[in-house]
Amino acid sequence: MEQNGLLILYTGQGKGKTTAAFGMAYRAMGRGWRVGVVQYIKGKWMTGERLFSERQPLLELFVMGEGFTWESSDISRDQAAAQQAWEKSRALISGGEYPLVILDEITYALHYGWLSLDEVRAVLKERPAHVSVVLTGRHAAQELIDDADCVTDMQMIKHPYQQGRKALQGVDF
Amino acid sequence: MEQNGLLILYTGQGKGKTTAAFGMAYRAMGRGWRVGVVQYIKGKWMTGERLFSERQPLLELFVMGEGFTWESSDISRDQAAAQQAWEKSRALISGGEYPLVILDEITYALHYGWLSLDEVRAVLKERPAHVSVVLTGRHAAQELIDDADCVTDMQMIKHPYQQGRKALQGVDF
Repeated sequence: MEQNGLLILYTGQGKGKTTAAFGMAYRAMGRGWRVGVVQYIKGKWMTGERLFSERQPLLELFVMGEGFTWESSDISRDQAAAQQAWEKSRALISGGEYPLVILDEITYALHYGWLSLDEVRAVLKERPAHVSVVLTGRHAAQELIDDADCVTDMQMIKHPYQQGRKALQGVDF
Repeated sequence: MEQNGLLILYTGQGKGKTTAAFGMAYRAMGRGWRVGVVQYIKGKWMTGERLFSERQPLLELFVMGEGFTWESSDISRDQAAAQQAWEKSRALISGGEYPLVILDEITYALHYGWLSLDEVRAVLKERPAHVSVVLTGRHAAQELIDDADCVTDMQMIKHPYQQGRKALQGVDF
């Protein structure tokens, strides 16, 4: 069976990467698709996208570190939390029940060496043919750019923080 | 009262501009905001984002040319449809009931000369202080870049159509 799901990468310094990923979820849910989202961020504060996600019956959201027991002492907490998020990601991708899987800000976990790039690439490559995956974050490895079907580099032309503007609830988070 | 709403511009050749705009709607609705969206495209086919939007009680969507009677014969149909979409946009922005207003692909209507750039800039400048506006599309005028608080240029690194991939329902539209 031909691979028709896409591997999409939103990277670069500009604003809009995570935002575009949630726009993908918006579009996919419009088609009745189930959507799996794993956020590779420390979920310390509530965001508008999390609040909205929690109300969507088609969407499953997993935030790295949430509900984490921190019992493991042999590897660093961040690495352990990232590994747990990756186990969840792998299950969502490989299970095939979610035609769209979003791994938000996963590039940081790779950049910091918390995850194996080879393993992530292998799971992406071997995913079910109908599954599209969106990756977001800065510092994307060249291998991910090579593997992806669609890559957008979001360049920052102007950022509100440059002008001393604070992050605005409902707009920035 | 200080302006705290932002003017956000997603432009450039890459994929993700409209997608990010709907991601803004996603986030804003998570905060309970009402969202107004005007799409400056000919709404000939159904999209996932339109299907999802129609189910959102907080969101009002207006697609250019929809329900247009095409009775006017003194100006071109496209210009008349764009003007009608702009009247709707102006009402959403100036009314103040929608903390987030999205003018999707409005840059094309400006680029083709269907709308007055001066008039659009004036309405954006004089909008209620709490209203954030998102503009999307290629060929953004320098004046819009100058006026905006946040500008992201979405650069196309790799596009699935380059590789002969067809647009995929649920992912691309």
